[in-house]
Amino acid sequence: MSNVWETNMNKTRVCVVGYGVIGQRLADGVALQEDMELVGVVDVAPTLAVRALHESGMPYKLFLVDPERKPEFGELGIPTSGTFDELLEEIDVALDATPGGIGAKNKELYIAHGVKAIFQGGEKNEIADAFFHGYANYEKGLGQDFLKLTSCNTTGLIRVVDAIDREVGVEKVAITIIRRVADPGDTHRGLVDLLKVEPVPNHQAVDLMTIMPHVDATGFLVHTPVTHGHIISIVATPKKPFKKDTLIEICRAHPRIRVVRIADGFNSNTALFRYARNLGNKRGDMYEIALWEECIGMSGDDILFAINIPQEAVTIPETIDGVRACMEMQTDWLDAVGLTNQYLSLRANT
Amino acid sequence: MSNVWETNMNKTRVCVVGYGVIGQRLADGVALQEDMELVGVVDVAPTLAVRALHESGMPYKLFLVDPERKPEFGELGIPTSGTFDELLEEIDVALDATPGGIGAKNKELYIAHGVKAIFQGGEKNEIADAFFHGYANYEKGLGQDFLKLTSCNTTGLIRVVDAIDREVGVEKVAITIIRRVADPGDTHRGLVDLLKVEPVPNHQAVDLMTIMPHVDATGFLVHTPVTHGHIISIVATPKKPFKKDTLIEICRAHPRIRVVRIADGFNSNTALFRYARNLGNKRGDMYEIALWEECIGMSGDDILFAINIPQEAVTIPETIDGVRACMEMQTDWLDAVGLTNQYLSLRANT
Amino acid sequence: MSNVWETNMNKTRVCVVGYGVIGQRLADGVALQEDMELVGVVDVAPTLAVRALHESGMPYKLFLVDPERKPEFGELGIPTSGTFDELLEEIDVALDATPGGIGAKNKELYIAHGVKAIFQGGEKNEIADAFFHGYANYEKGLGQDFLKLTSCNTTGLIRVVDAIDREVGVEKVAITIIRRVADPGDTHRGLVDLLKVEPVPNHQAVDLMTIMPHVDATGFLVHTPVTHGHIISIVATPKKPFKKDTLIEICRAHPRIRVVRIADGFNSNTALFRYARNLGNKRGDMYEIALWEECIGMSGDDILFAINIPQEAVTIPETIDGVRACMEMQTDWLDAVGLTNQYLSLRANT
Amino acid sequence: MSNVWETNMNKTRVCVVGYGVIGQRLADGVALQEDMELVGVVDVAPTLAVRALHESGMPYKLFLVDPERKPEFGELGIPTSGTFDELLEEIDVALDATPGGIGAKNKELYIAHGVKAIFQGGEKNEIADAFFHGYANYEKGLGQDFLKLTSCNTTGLIRVVDAIDREVGVEKVAITIIRRVADPGDTHRGLVDLLKVEPVPNHQAVDLMTIMPHVDATGFLVHTPVTHGHIISIVATPKKPFKKDTLIEICRAHPRIRVVRIADGFNSNTALFRYARNLGNKRGDMYEIALWEECIGMSGDDILFAINIPQEAVTIPETIDGVRACMEMQTDWLDAVGLTNQYLSLRANT
Repeated sequence: MSNVWETNMNKTRVCVVGYGVIGQRLADGVALQEDMELVGVVDVAPTLAVRALHESGMPYKLFLVDPERKPEFGELGIPTSGTFDELLEEIDVALDATPGGIGAKNKELYIAHGVKAIFQGGEKNEIADAFFHGYANYEKGLGQDFLKLTSCNTTGLIRVVDAIDREVGVEKVAITIIRRVADPGDTHRGLVDLLKVEPVPNHQAVDLMTIMPHVDATGFLVHTPVTHGHIISIVATPKKPFKKDTLIEICRAHPRIRVVRIADGFNSNTALFRYARNLGNKRGDMYEIALWEECIGMSGDDILFAINIPQEAVTIPETIDGVRACMEMQTDWLDAVGLTNQYLSLRANT
Repeated sequence: MSNVWETNMNKTRVCVVGYGVIGQRLADGVALQEDMELVGVVDVAPTLAVRALHESGMPYKLFLVDPERKPEFGELGIPTSGTFDELLEEIDVALDATPGGIGAKNKELYIAHGVKAIFQGGEKNEIADAFFHGYANYEKGLGQDFLKLTSCNTTGLIRVVDAIDREVGVEKVAITIIRRVADPGDTHRGLVDLLKVEPVPNHQAVDLMTIMPHVDATGFLVHTPVTHGHIISIVATPKKPFKKDTLIEICRAHPRIRVVRIADGFNSNTALFRYARNLGNKRGDMYEIALWEECIGMSGDDILFAINIPQEAVTIPETIDGVRACMEMQTDWLDAVGLTNQYLSLRANT
Repeated sequence: MSNVWETNMNKTRVCVVGYGVIGQRLADGVALQEDMELVGVVDVAPTLAVRALHESGMPYKLFLVDPERKPEFGELGIPTSGTFDELLEEIDVALDATPGGIGAKNKELYIAHGVKAIFQGGEKNEIADAFFHGYANYEKGLGQDFLKLTSCNTTGLIRVVDAIDREVGVEKVAITIIRRVADPGDTHRGLVDLLKVEPVPNHQAVDLMTIMPHVDATGFLVHTPVTHGHIISIVATPKKPFKKDTLIEICRAHPRIRVVRIADGFNSNTALFRYARNLGNKRGDMYEIALWEECIGMSGDDILFAINIPQEAVTIPETIDGVRACMEMQTDWLDAVGLTNQYLSLRANT
Repeated sequence: MSNVWETNMNKTRVCVVGYGVIGQRLADGVALQEDMELVGVVDVAPTLAVRALHESGMPYKLFLVDPERKPEFGELGIPTSGTFDELLEEIDVALDATPGGIGAKNKELYIAHGVKAIFQGGEKNEIADAFFHGYANYEKGLGQDFLKLTSCNTTGLIRVVDAIDREVGVEKVAITIIRRVADPGDTHRGLVDLLKVEPVPNHQAVDLMTIMPHVDATGFLVHTPVTHGHIISIVATPKKPFKKDTLIEICRAHPRIRVVRIADGFNSNTALFRYARNLGNKRGDMYEIALWEECIGMSGDDILFAINIPQEAVTIPETIDGVRACMEMQTDWLDAVGLTNQYLSLRANT
């Protein structure tokens, strides 16, 4: 182990807490970062995700929240490497992907062990020192102990609004979120033959204003009975004249945005998922949001366009940016996101 | 029969061509108009709709497109009252609710028989002398021989945009249509776990500009796997300052708009359908679009709000307005829509 | 009131407790029984169902569970006629259609007021003196104080199994239930793009054996993301040779079974719902289960066939039969179900 | 190339015609067979599947049906390696995965080039010399020029029925297929809130009898609005007494059947898909059908159980078996399926 330790000497030591839909993908993403070490993942029970980890050969070490449940794992032949407490002694940053509310309890542990933590969007803003997005406010996360990531919709939305904002300035946005209501395989929630509406403004618009306080935002959200990606329709008021082609150029240049065409067959959120499966991406995941080239129009001087949010994987890059920020691995945001992108093989379209 | 004839002497004689989803509802709506006579309905085959007409006691006379198929109806015990040609001799206006494209062929028959006709949104604009909406451009339909109604989404959309326009003026609108992809029971189309996108602008925005040429419109449309109503998110730029409460007042005063609250349980398109079923409305239909009180927000001086379009029945009132216009039964639009509303029991909320 | 009282003197006085999906339909069904009086319905809050009752002119009197909430109803202009306790003084039988578990609490009230009650399938069997089905074991309900109805699937399943059993005897059945997972408008449960399986045997098979102890039954259940009716596939082993045509004849002769054909357009559960809407049935409801004529086949001497269960309304007739049984209005089951059918306009197909 | 050629000298040269849902998976499966060479894949247009092949680095050579469309591929930078005709000169067996009906036309090409071909279930039986299933009738395919594979449902169904048949004999089966109506991403077909029924018997029961003529089969099929796997409920009449545990043992021993438990979280077809994604399987595919341990019950001496069919990948192993049979690579079926399984990493559960 000492050899590995030496090799890993300068690496930031990371663990993932909660090995569910987001946790599994965080682990995969961190494992690809050459300047980070994924020390282990933590879960409470031999869930299907844990069994899949086992069946695929334990690429990541597993630690247990509750040591008393160790026999349960043993009977299934699933090796464990210690307890949550032990793991926290070995790491610098915990990526907390537990169900909403658990993170707040875990925070006490992180404090006790003197480690930093990054929480997902399900926790309340108060849990963290900064509400964070890798592109829009990297500097707010520098050196902080506790960050909270934006949720999946907000993460993708801010990517594109921030990109426009850096180019021409954004005065205001009015968004309509057509939300997938469950992840593939979820049985604890779902809707049948129903579009469920939420009051205006949705939390994503409010969150955007927290991260980008100079932009006025409001929005409407409708839950729809699908699983493979949210779609957001955005009406943006730019500060300078702005055209369709400029939006396409900005998005093509963005390593975390993919510009696609209905004419090529990308006619739905699920077409993007199918494409990612066919690419051989693990789990059929995609880190990039997509912009539909044919779904852009002018409304006077405002611009209307639509993006796709692959909810299972979209927050992974920005969470990894968060590790860079809180550990001050890079102080310049462009250096930070650039490295994250490089290790995740995210490139600008040319 | 002469007695009935006398009673009906001054009534406009109407027939419905194509007894499908829309045709059945047009028949029911016309039958309620005390100054119109529903002479009969026409169809080509003993469809389930025709069988339901029979099982419910033939409240409307049935005429056949193809007399050679009469024995088919006879075997089922379904009485028929003559042919399409014979029916056209007895009527003033044909409401054509046949599948897209058939109306264009029927038009030759209408010309030959010297009757007027109103086509539904599936036909091309060129088929008609005027593209018609009872509230927005009633006068364009006056005395015309051939009208084309706006489609279901456009009909509902124009109701509310026209209402705002009459109050404060509308400069532009940017809409996002969350479209139900099939009617309940349809098996010839459908989507599973998929949000299908269409290029911007959608035809509804273009149609709105045809009917209301002084308003700039664009929009994005997403097909969703549901059946009980479209939802439209609208960002409107008014010509004068305009607030949320004013929108609510305008809509409350509109007999064809129902203002509802999520807090009361109206949390989805299907909640509205369920409510209409519980009201005892025939087929669980609703003529009114709905505006969600909690789904209104300001985006700077623009206003964002959302409406529900009950696609099966929403165009019925405006089609009946069309009968009034083309027959010049009323020359003032307020008189016309007022009578249609009265006979359909549509009232302003107070 | 005394006049009405005289007219109603010999009528069985019934109330409905819980005015939800089932409660509304029980009220409608009881109101049609000329030998019963629907004294009132009870609910706890101004739900959408209660608001629809109000908007449709209060055809039924409304009583309140909690008198302290009366002002809430008053503000909405919804008239109330007293309390649950007061109502229980005026009735003979309560039809309890409250959510599962509440009925057990209400039972104490029924005992205190000396009234009989009929519970729906959501309660435990122990709540009742008899687990009841109008056709299969009417005599078990005679004079009992507390009956529990079979659930929607079991009610429909037993209809057809009992009908075969009376003709040729049934040795055993193996069923596959393709279950609709939510009612139209439900947001508290649902599934997206998922077939959820349940352990064998399902409760419906077990329930069938409770009602028909001489039949061996097992079954498998799959929840599917639809709302308009369950479909059950049945493999039945008859005691005597039995053919497809005999099954069709038996079902045609049964007032609560409708024999339909795919060839006519009845190609789905939702086609049946659409047909019921087009018939003008209130809420688009159907009391009858359907048997598909083309979906019958022989498996050696066993017979395979499929039925549709319209879950919202299917238990209404058998619940009304229960009133007849527990009040001993008729002692012969054929007299009882015959009257229920007559008042609900249910007739054999000829 | 000569070096490669030498290495490949004794390998069976295979191509895949039609690079769609099945074709892509056939290519992946053949590429894993160490005694086969995937010479190339053929398609007609730069579909999304072809673009994904390109974006993932062209692991397989692409040939064009229509040489005139080569510039279209060139503009996208997609390299092509020749024409369909040229490819047919280089191969021994074509795996035809074109849309139903095209295969019949391609057959003339295969004859002209003197190559063998294996067609998928969409073609008519007459196209082939034998209707083939690797486990149930391997010997029927030996040395034949043209094989037709069973469809996805039939392939999985026969796996388990054949396994039982080899153990205790099967007299008859009555099946209920709960069919996924579309693949993820399909927009050309789909259903919303609807269970669509088909006449009895379904083609899968008929096909089973063609492959296993000594078994009597019938069945009912319902299309359901899901995408991630069919579920089949089977009532089987064994020739000898047979118990639940024996079925579990047989299935555990079968490399192409996975025994799963609801209690572990495998509560749906989509849970299996999610698990396969989490395993890191390419595209989240699974070759194995699944048997639910809790979904087995006795119906007298008959046995009721349920299996899951992952429709996108299930036919790949048996198609590869077909290559072995028609090329007489192995004359013993156990040797053949054993090698296919070994190269696909399919193992019995122990």
